Formats: sequence, structure tokens, C-alpha cells
Amino acid sequence: MNQNSMCEDELSLALIEAQYAFKKARGTKTGKSLLILVSGIELAGKGEAVKQLREWMDPRYLRVKADTPNLLNNEQPFWQPYVSSVPREGQIVVLFGNWYSDLLTTAMHINHPFDESTFDGYVQKMQAFEDDLKNNAVDVMKFWFDTSWSHLQKRLQNIDLSEQQLHRLHGVDWHKKKQYENVQRLRQRFTQDWIVIDEDDNKSRNTKFALNILKHLKHDALSSVVNTAIWKQSSIHEKLTHTPEQTFDHSSYKQQLKKLTKQVAHLLREDQRRIVIMFEGMDAAGKGGAIKRIVKKLDPREYEIHAISAPEKYELRHPYLWRFWMKTNQDKITIFDRSWYGRVLVERVEKFADDAAWQRAYDEINRFEQDLVSTNTVVIKFWLSIDKNEQERRFKAREETPHKRFKITDEDWRNRKKWDNYLQAASDMFANTDTVFAPWHIIATDNKRHARLQVLEAIIQQMKAGYPPS
Amino acid sequence: MNQNSMCEDELSLALIEAQYAFKKARGTKTGKSLLILVSGIELAGKGEAVKQLREWMDPRYLRVKADTPNLLNNEQPFWQPYVSSVPREGQIVVLFGNWYSDLLTTAMHINHPFDESTFDGYVQKMQAFEDDLKNNAVDVMKFWFDTSWSHLQKRLQNIDLSEQQLHRLHGVDWHKKKQYENVQRLRQRFTQDWIVIDEDDNKSRNTKFALNILKHLKHDALSSVVNTAIWKQSSIHEKLTHTPEQTFDHSSYKQQLKKLTKQVAHLLREDQRRIVIMFEGMDAAGKGGAIKRIVKKLDPREYEIHAISAPEKYELRHPYLWRFWMKTNQDKITIFDRSWYGRVLVERVEKFADDAAWQRAYDEINRFEQDLVSTNTVVIKFWLSIDKNEQERRFKAREETPHKRFKITDEDWRNRKKWDNYLQAASDMFANTDTVFAPWHIIATDNKRHARLQVLEAIIQQMKAGYPPS
Repeated sequence: MNQNSMCEDELSLALIEAQYAFKKARGTKTGKSLLILVSGIELAGKGEAVKQLREWMDPRYLRVKADTPNLLNNEQPFWQPYVSSVPREGQIVVLFGNWYSDLLTTAMHINHPFDESTFDGYVQKMQAFEDDLKNNAVDVMKFWFDTSWSHLQKRLQNIDLSEQQLHRLHGVDWHKKKQYENVQRLRQRFTQDWIVIDEDDNKSRNTKFALNILKHLKHDALSSVVNTAIWKQSSIHEKLTHTPEQTFDHSSYKQQLKKLTKQVAHLLREDQRRIVIMFEGMDAAGKGGAIKRIVKKLDPREYEIHAISAPEKYELRHPYLWRFWMKTNQDKITIFDRSWYGRVLVERVEKFADDAAWQRAYDEINRFEQDLVSTNTVVIKFWLSIDKNEQERRFKAREETPHKRFKITDEDWRNRKKWDNYLQAASDMFANTDTVFAPWHIIATDNKRHARLQVLEAIIQQMKAGYPPS
Repeated sequence: MNQNSMCEDELSLALIEAQYAFKKARGTKTGKSLLILVSGIELAGKGEAVKQLREWMDPRYLRVKADTPNLLNNEQPFWQPYVSSVPREGQIVVLFGNWYSDLLTTAMHINHPFDESTFDGYVQKMQAFEDDLKNNAVDVMKFWFDTSWSHLQKRLQNIDLSEQQLHRLHGVDWHKKKQYENVQRLRQRFTQDWIVIDEDDNKSRNTKFALNILKHLKHDALSSVVNTAIWKQSSIHEKLTHTPEQTFDHSSYKQQLKKLTKQVAHLLREDQRRIVIMFEGMDAAGKGGAIKRIVKKLDPREYEIHAISAPEKYELRHPYLWRFWMKTNQDKITIFDRSWYGRVLVERVEKFADDAAWQRAYDEINRFEQDLVSTNTVVIKFWLSIDKNEQERRFKAREETPHKRFKITDEDWRNRKKWDNYLQAASDMFANTDTVFAPWHIIATDNKRHARLQVLEAIIQQMKAGYPPS
């Protein structure tokens, strides 16, 4: 065994040990996952480096996802194609082909190339998304494999025809200097904080790539997030305590309901945008009843309803928004009975999320919703509020009705004791997430019938006036 | 409260209680999931019945998946679009829109309608798939909502224009009697064992649907599978004990390897079919090394490697094939380091699967592979065999090499003690799953280099000669 292969063996051993330690931290306070983004100039050796890494590490715990590029468009967020590849706690995933490859490919391919501000806008969004990942225990490393124009041309001469075809498919024609230079110019707009691998020699390249990962696993992976922001809570939102006067005409309820359910069904059905409707609110405020009226005149093939309860174990090993990323791009009309706001409501009040986590969540949620809205989705958010005494009346009525008893548990009574905490959490939520593109509708439900009509009217109003432009 | 609504409340209560009992059985011997297929004539009330069921039951534990039809084609198995909807243990899922809707839609839509034997062939495959689900703790109920021609026409008159459009989209033009009759004629080829709901009145329809589900949850869901087949084990396959003579020319190895890796890369890359390559074999037989040579001349974007270890907890709550259904339709070239054959190898030997389960698995696996092959996928299966003494030498060598030590655990030594059981399991596997469309390649690996070349040659041979026709 010569000196070089000795070094390789040692590197391999160190990588495997680091990998096992990383895996072992699963479920502990320092538990994390690692996402490695690999991009670069064609034939700069990234494929070899990834293959070599797979051989040095234990391949059972290193997943390589390598997709051909997706063109960015206004129909889905840039992260959507990669959501199912985001590693679970303890996992390491190499994304060979990722949102940056998509961005470069799109910028090089479309008829009207991006202007600089569109390009930079994407880069900013991508970096913000990665920050959100990092803050939610998914470390992100970024590698750019680089090579000079002259080296690239030499390498192109040495590969056979079928491979040349492949390399043309994946983006640009690497025989054209102008295209090469264009890629270099564009990538410099985002690779400032990347690790650049530009060694000419195969072995040094592979080693540098692996050593950087080793270093990360041994050191940086152990650090945790520090929250430096100062938290200021909001005053209680007046609509949560103020019970509106009842001037509701019950005699015309059925007629109005019929008219509005028809109108809502028609609007939702004919609209070209995707629609997400979401309900939060105190227990027994009537979320189920409101949803029933929204879908009244729709066929089940036209919508999907997600009833959100506590996350499953495997979901807890992902960023908390992950299970919603998985549910927001499939259907034309998606209705959530409880939602991602659980992070800043129940998880805050019950202390399932620490202060830093829920305080950070407002921005994460705003970004998430903005990504939906900017890819042709209307996001309609309801808070159904209820008077504390009225809630007690409904709880008791439920307990006395056999087939409704399942709706009420000890937990609901316990939550009730934290009424003021929930009011505070809801108020902070409105203060921080009532955005122009995804505003909150706060509906008092002490009169159930009136509330149902108001929900339908709010949908009509937001569909007609709201974001994104229809 | 009148008599009728009393009955409804009682039904709702009974449904919820049954649902909770069903959910509670999770993780026990009677734990199951339930898949409810809903199809039928348009406007026969299936949408209403599903909505009503959702209101009567606890909607948090009843998922409704309602997709518009997929046209059946030769590019993916009929079950592929529904794999992610197969319920986990304890869950109930309504598939409103399912493989039968797809079959009907396809039969009504394509230019050259299916002949009867193609149609019946699909029906047979679908029923076999459902049997496999049932045998793997996923109960399947099938409902056909029916209505007469005259009733259908009356209902069509009473809906508004935007809905009419919707109903035309979903399949056939229901104003045309000939099309209506065609659907009826076709569906009678598969609905013999379905529950037919043809009540005229909304309430009776909804109630009949719900009552049947209730009955199933309370009675049939508790029954378990009885295996009546008699098991006959095979004699030990001669290739597993016979060590071939070594007439291998080592001097030309590198040259041959280079030639074959190039040829394999070229073939895999240029072929229009999807390719699944799968490795099984005793520990230390060299699976990793063989895979390395297959992908030698490929770019990581061209293939995906799945290293299969013990299933995760959430995967155990699905049929054992489920995690492979999720991995076989995404990529052009997919390589499995261990596979679905774990069911009849390690799970059999270690008694993780009971006798009925692994004995049934051969047919399940054959159907699975046939479904892949008949939808344009080449399935190439390798068993890497090794001499028992040679394995011991390799184990010891691994233990003495620091960066290879992770490859060898106490478990490997324990498995070795069950050498004969594994030989028996492998022999039975060859006897039962060596099919024309997905044959086994048994490669002796005592000479590693020779073995690698043989693997590459076998791939070339099967790609050129095999199923499906290229």
C-alpha cells in the first residue's frame, strides 16, 4: 500500500466515523441533517467527486439525488421539486442538480433572459430558504466545481459522442465560449459564500470536496442557532375580545347561504389560480361547519381537505414546515383545518417549540406564503374567534351529545385554561403575518350562521381583489 | 330532534367508535388499514355520499383522495399514481377516482378501444393487486354508484352550466345514451364483487354507503389471512455450492473492464426503456464493487442507487413492497443494493415475516416485476454467491482494515451461522422467481475481478435479448 492510498483510507475512515457520529446525534439536542448542493461547470469533475465520496463513506447513509434541471416558472416555488429530497435528521443528501442549477439553466434557456434584478431576486429567495433550513436543523453546504475555458475544451475532446450529447442536454453548449462566459458571469452573482473546487487534478478535487464535508461534520455540525432578535409582544387584538352586536336576519339565512355557496363554488372552480384556504381558531369555533359550506356545491374531485393534528414522528425529523411543503402543490383547491400556524399557536403555548423557534417562525411563514402567492396561489386565512362563555356552552353541549363527544377531550378543557396565552399568541400572529398578499380574516362566530356567511363573503372578496392578480 | 336525525346521530356515533377501534388496533396483530374505492355513473350521488361520510366520521382520521382520471398507458403500472395514497396501518382512505375509473376512462377515450381481452387482462391485474393489498393488511372495499338512464337525464337538467362542464370533463358525455350504455356494459365486467349503491333517494344512498363501511369496520376488519397453500422447499441450487474453476486471464482484466464499462454505459444511456438493476447475495460477496463498475462511465444524473436496509417504522405500517413501489418509477436507471427480496431472505430466515407471509411473497414479487416489465422497464437481477471460507477470509480482512471495519458487524457473523438457511432461502427464491421476463443471474464471486466482468456481460446480454422488447 503506497502513501497515497494510505491517506485515502484514513480519509475514508474519518468520514465514516463522522457520518456515524452525525447519525447517532439523531434525536438529541445537536441532531441535524446535512444537505450538500453541488453545481458547477460541466466536466469540472463534480460527478467523479460525488461518486468518490459515495465510495469513501458508508453509502447506506449517503443519498445522492441527481436530477436534470427544472426550468423555473411562475407555477411552482423553486423549492417544490426538491421537497421530498430534504434530508431527515441524521441523513446526508447530496443534491447534484438543485435550485441553482435550475436558475442557471433557466437564465440560459429562456427566450427573454432574466434581467439582473429578477436573477438576484431568485438568489435572495434561495438564500432565505437555505437560512430557514439551517434554522430548522438542516445544514446546507454549497460547492461550485470550476474549470478554465481551456481545460474544459481539452476535456470535451476526450469524451465520446454519446457523452457529449448528454453534456449538451444539461444546459448549455460548452463548446461555445460566449455561453461559458455567460455561465461564469451569472454564477458569480451567487457563489460568494460557496466552496469553490477548481483543482485540475482528479484526486485533489475529490479530496478537497471530501475534506470540506469532513470538516463540516466534525465542527460546524455541532453548532446551534443563536437567536439575537429581541421579541416584542403585541397588544391583544380588539376583534378577539370585542363581541359584535347581533343584527343578523335569520329569516333569510337559507336563501343567502344557497346563493353564496353557489357563487363560491363557481369562483373557485373557474379561477385559473390554485387556492389554499386555511382555518385557525379556538376549539369549537366552528371550523368544520365553515368548511362544509365552502365545499357544499363542489365535487370531491375538485378539492382536498387536510385536517392537521400533531405531527407524526417521521415528520418531526424534518423542518416543521416540511409537511406543509408536501401538501401545497398538488391540488387546485386545498383546505386546511388547522395549519402551519400551529408553530406560533399550540407549539408556542405548550412550549413544544422554544422561544427562538416560534419567534423565527413568523418570517418563515411569511416567506412560505409569499412563495405560494408568487407562484399563482391565492392564500386565504381565517381565524374563527369565539367568546369564552360561548365556548364553554358548546363544550358542554358536545359532551351531552354522544356522536359529538369525540370532538371534545380533556385536552380541550386544558387548552381553555390557557385562554389568555392563546389570545396573546393569536394577537402576535396577526401583528406579524397579516400581509398584503395573504391577509387574515377574523370572523366572530358567536352567531354560527352569520359567521358562515361571512366566511363565504370573505372568500369572494379576496378572490376578486387579492393577490396574486388573477 | 326527529326520528330521522336521531338515526343519523346514532350512525355517526357508531362510525366514530368503529373508527377509533380500528385506529387503536394499530400495532397489534389485527392492525390494518382500509382503502375504499368509489366509482360509478356521474351524478349518481357518490360525491354527496363521500361528503356525508366525512361529516359522520371523525374527519381527522378519514382521508379523501379524489383525482381526475389518469389514462392507462404502457409507461407506468396502473397502481403507480395511487401508491402514495395507500393508507398506513390504522388509516382509512377513500379513493374517489381510482384504477377502475382510469380503466373506464381509458376504454372510453382512446382511439382504438380496448378489445375485451385487454380490458379483462387489466381487471385481472387489478384484482390481483387488491388481493396483494388485502394479504398485506390493507383491506379494500369497492362501491359502484349506479343510476338509471332516465334518472341521470333528470339530474343533468338540474345542474348549472359550470358543473355540466365539469361532468363532461370527467370521462364521457353523459347526455349520450350510447356512451352511458357503453359504460354500463364495461363496468359489468368487473363489478360482480362490488357493493352497488343504486338508491334514488339521497339519504338512503348516503346511509347505505356508510352502513356498509360500518359493517366492514366492525366485523370483516377483524378477520385475518389464512394461508392454505402447501409449501414445498426446493433443493439447494447447484451454483450456490459449486465453485467454478478459475480459468481467468488476469493480464487482460483492465482492458476488458474498460471496454465493458464503456459498453454498459452506452447501452444504459441510449436505451429507451427504464432499467432496474438489483443485487442480492451473501455479505462480502462484492455488491458494492460490482455497482461501482456499472456506474463507472455514467454521470450521477443518469442513475440513482438505493442502498436498502431494514425498513423504517413508518414503512412497516405499509405493505412490505410499498417502499419499493415508491422507488421504481422515478428514474431512468435505478440500482438496488439489496431489494424487495429481503422478504424471502432475511425476513424469512430471521422470522420477521411469518411463514404465510414469505411464502405468499414469491407471487407478489413476480406480479410486481411483471408490472414493471410490462410498462417498459428492464429488470436485471443478480445473486452474488461466495464460498463460505472465502467469506470468512474477507470478513477478517475487513476487520483488520480500519476504514472497512464499518462494513462488518456482529450481525454479519451471526448471519454466517445461518449459512445453510440462507442457501435454502436463496434456492427457493430462484425456484419461484426466476421468470422469463426477469431472470436471475447467479455470479460466483470468489474471483472478484472475474465476477465484475461477468456482471457487466450479463447486463449487456439481458439488455439485448430480454424483456420488455426494446
